[in-house]
Amino acid sequence: MFKTDLEIAQECKMEHIKDVAAKIGIEEKDLEYYGNYKAKVSLDLLHRNENKEDGKLILVTAINPTKAGEGKSTTTVGLGDALNRIGKKTMIALREPSLGPVFGLKGGAAGGGYAQVVPMEDINLHFTGDMHAITTANNLISACLDNHIHQGNALDIDINHVTWKRCMDMNDRTLRRIEIGKGPKANGVEREDGFNITVASEVMAVLCLSTSLMDLKERLGNMLIAYNTKNEPIYVKDLGIEGALAMVMKDAIKPNMVQTLEHNPVLIHGGPFANIAHGCNSILATKTCLKLADYTVTEAGFGADLGAEKFLDIKCRFGGLKPSAVVIVATIRALKQHGNVALEDLKEENVEAMLAGCENLAKHIDTIQQFGLPYIVAINEFATDTPAEVEALQNWCKEHGHPMSLSQVWAKGGEGAIDLANQLVELCDQPNTYAPLYDVNETIEDKITAIATKVYGAANVEFSDEAKEQIKLYNELGWNKMPICMAKTQMSLSDNDKLYGAPKDFTITVRELRPSLGAGFIVALTGKILTMPGLPKTPAANNMDINEEGHIVGLF
Amino acid sequence: MFKTDLEIAQECKMEHIKDVAAKIGIEEKDLEYYGNYKAKVSLDLLHRNENKEDGKLILVTAINPTKAGEGKSTTTVGLGDALNRIGKKTMIALREPSLGPVFGLKGGAAGGGYAQVVPMEDINLHFTGDMHAITTANNLISACLDNHIHQGNALDIDINHVTWKRCMDMNDRTLRRIEIGKGPKANGVEREDGFNITVASEVMAVLCLSTSLMDLKERLGNMLIAYNTKNEPIYVKDLGIEGALAMVMKDAIKPNMVQTLEHNPVLIHGGPFANIAHGCNSILATKTCLKLADYTVTEAGFGADLGAEKFLDIKCRFGGLKPSAVVIVATIRALKQHGNVALEDLKEENVEAMLAGCENLAKHIDTIQQFGLPYIVAINEFATDTPAEVEALQNWCKEHGHPMSLSQVWAKGGEGAIDLANQLVELCDQPNTYAPLYDVNETIEDKITAIATKVYGAANVEFSDEAKEQIKLYNELGWNKMPICMAKTQMSLSDNDKLYGAPKDFTITVRELRPSLGAGFIVALTGKILTMPGLPKTPAANNMDINEEGHIVGLF
Repeated sequence: MFKTDLEIAQECKMEHIKDVAAKIGIEEKDLEYYGNYKAKVSLDLLHRNENKEDGKLILVTAINPTKAGEGKSTTTVGLGDALNRIGKKTMIALREPSLGPVFGLKGGAAGGGYAQVVPMEDINLHFTGDMHAITTANNLISACLDNHIHQGNALDIDINHVTWKRCMDMNDRTLRRIEIGKGPKANGVEREDGFNITVASEVMAVLCLSTSLMDLKERLGNMLIAYNTKNEPIYVKDLGIEGALAMVMKDAIKPNMVQTLEHNPVLIHGGPFANIAHGCNSILATKTCLKLADYTVTEAGFGADLGAEKFLDIKCRFGGLKPSAVVIVATIRALKQHGNVALEDLKEENVEAMLAGCENLAKHIDTIQQFGLPYIVAINEFATDTPAEVEALQNWCKEHGHPMSLSQVWAKGGEGAIDLANQLVELCDQPNTYAPLYDVNETIEDKITAIATKVYGAANVEFSDEAKEQIKLYNELGWNKMPICMAKTQMSLSDNDKLYGAPKDFTITVRELRPSLGAGFIVALTGKILTMPGLPKTPAANNMDINEEGHIVGLF
Repeated sequence: MFKTDLEIAQECKMEHIKDVAAKIGIEEKDLEYYGNYKAKVSLDLLHRNENKEDGKLILVTAINPTKAGEGKSTTTVGLGDALNRIGKKTMIALREPSLGPVFGLKGGAAGGGYAQVVPMEDINLHFTGDMHAITTANNLISACLDNHIHQGNALDIDINHVTWKRCMDMNDRTLRRIEIGKGPKANGVEREDGFNITVASEVMAVLCLSTSLMDLKERLGNMLIAYNTKNEPIYVKDLGIEGALAMVMKDAIKPNMVQTLEHNPVLIHGGPFANIAHGCNSILATKTCLKLADYTVTEAGFGADLGAEKFLDIKCRFGGLKPSAVVIVATIRALKQHGNVALEDLKEENVEAMLAGCENLAKHIDTIQQFGLPYIVAINEFATDTPAEVEALQNWCKEHGHPMSLSQVWAKGGEGAIDLANQLVELCDQPNTYAPLYDVNETIEDKITAIATKVYGAANVEFSDEAKEQIKLYNELGWNKMPICMAKTQMSLSDNDKLYGAPKDFTITVRELRPSLGAGFIVALTGKILTMPGLPKTPAANNMDINEEGHIVGLF
């Protein structure tokens, strides 16, 4: 029997986090311990090193995943360990897991097998409380907003035009659309509202894109929350609570340090989903890594159509980051799914279907090429892969001239990615022509169309009447010079989660836009994508338990 | 100008928490640090000392307070420091502040002046995350319950008879009554719901009354969440998620150690409000103190009608605790309010009104006498008190034979309560006849009537039709042998918050009952009391700010 991720993680004899930090030159004065194995890293460390040259930045992305994920975090962790093994001073920057999917389908999310970050249980539960701080800040805005309306509504807020929603770090579909303020007058003003999952909150995006505590405060103040009855925008700062919000997030803004199973330093900070948000860890964490290490390996959520596009068009643009190379993770399982093999048959050998599914991989490679970056395909090996399938995929890469490496980090840890690491060192030394895909000064329609046609391979984009009206308003208000954060299913390149492979001649439907003025982008919701997930028939929570000694089971 | 509480707290040069812990004999192996000044204390420490004799337990309670509070926490902290000053090995056990009132009216809640616990900012914000863990556990139940209904409702849950509510650590009146599951079928089943403030969640009560992690898990499983269409009870364990819930709370169950401004050890753990919940810190924290220290000073929320009654009838009964003495805190300000002086005139000298208001103090003294415990009145000195008022109050106590001490801990720290400490040492050596007020085997009506008549001074109790039906059902289900947790306004001995002093001939109206089967008591809601507060016209959040260096203002 294979050991579970949790069992492997629990067997790890962790080093004290101060010793892990020391490896990368971080002193105790810059650490605030949360137990022996977690620490907040001071922002001052980054500020003191601001003028130092950045190390190389490697992005790990993937093809469109199966529901189990492609092993992007696993590859990121294993690659970081491998780079350290070959003598390169390397740090890893990851996103914080959300509790929603932990209790839902996925269980934990901190890598897998022998390529994990630890303490896995803590990282997957409350960690250092960042998610809770974000939830609190988000909901303090709602409470103050509804209180303002209840207490006389001096700002003349139109209760039918409140754009700010509450949030919860939970998969809870019944909270998507609710009516609040029911009952007697003392219960406040009745109106429609809804909850997003915390990782989709603009507060999360703001945390991830801020460059200092004061920048955070300013961005929080600039968030749009409603319109008044004259259709003029109302911001958080109109409620006068941006100071309180920044205070609530004073610790959350500091990156969190943990270690890999091989005791290499990792920063985990910020965790927006890539399907409904911008999908990258914080700029502060990535920048801290870049200043301290020669190589930084980071990931962006889901496939290159979502996470990588937003990493390259939003995060790198805002953070002034210059990536050196991209790893595109693919599994034979997922390629077979893109070759239209049914979920229950994915374990069976099917070379033909796999090769057909390579068109999905090819499209993501094309995307990275459009961004002007060197790339390598990492085949994340699964126990069910057959030698014939692996060989066929290796040949496909060779035939098409795509650099490729077989990654065995799940089974072997860093040792399983030595070849990948060596190839990446070479790729990082190549000059590259990285540039974002579009200019922010293009129209909203053009920017969305650029992403849909160039990255998704869509034929065209259709805007709903609501979206058209919103664009008109944003143009009037001058909110049209920002990047776009697409919200789209992760299962397909299209906005229909049933279309595998590399669909053609399809239309992307933009249903609604949401201006994130604090984050600095406009969210475009496509297809049926929702910003609050639901739980499956049997939630992962049903398999979780803890015994008297505090030993946990069921958190995969 | 007086310094604010926050300014005084920020001037304190804290000791490392391991040094504070060492004073009371706690070794590093039993501590898990959250930064340098906060630590979780292992439950194993208590279990290893289980057979040791308990130290003396001193409860600090108060008269019915003004909106500013009577300074119960302040007195508790100052008294603990004073006992340490006179050479008594003393620990303090307090409740964790809720964020709701922090952003609302009150600002911080960790003592005041020179009798505070630190780090004040952390304690008042996210602290070690216990509140967030409770919120998460509470809402995971709701998400799984609604998901169960949505996925086919195998348990046949009556959607019009769901008793479990969601919660948030926020003052947010618009969430009191909501409708969820609006919109298309994919958004789940539509029904009425509401949010309690987290401190009123049964999960909080369960945390505070649990004696081990396994006891916690069992209690969480036993919580009532709904009835099925045959009117049979459905429990958390029917959803099969008590293991996940206990896992979510694995750290929250461990008491938190901090220090007073005078560097004495304090455990802060669990924070139910005393008006809408049982109002006491955790049994685990109090027991840990009793095993390690010769004197433990603890508080129970609001006046003796609420916190002390529940401390003596619920917490001590369940925890097998034997209190030694009670401190009843009174301020001259509040006594004047009970003598019907208007809020804006409380700063003016008014000996006559103050003496009239002493009937409120007399009633609380009577309550403590009924419980068979020695007591002392602590006059918590305010800058606005006049010599004539202080003297008149001292004389009133003397005339009526009530032990009394002038407490100046706000201005002087422990030095300001040396006399109080010395008198308490003597009181603790007196034998006492402590016993709960009622037998749990009495009827629900009789138990409620006992509290209402003996503690509140009510003439009688009226039960609403809904409450009567509930009692009938609970009798059938065998849920009638538990203590009662009254929910009542803290402003008055009656259930009408405008009735000051010691009202007579009034009726207590029991509107609704809520069985807390995991906690092990029945909540009785009286008058207009609500389990979700609202924000005031200008929330405290509006005055809060943080600067670039992380310096906070406005968190009083």
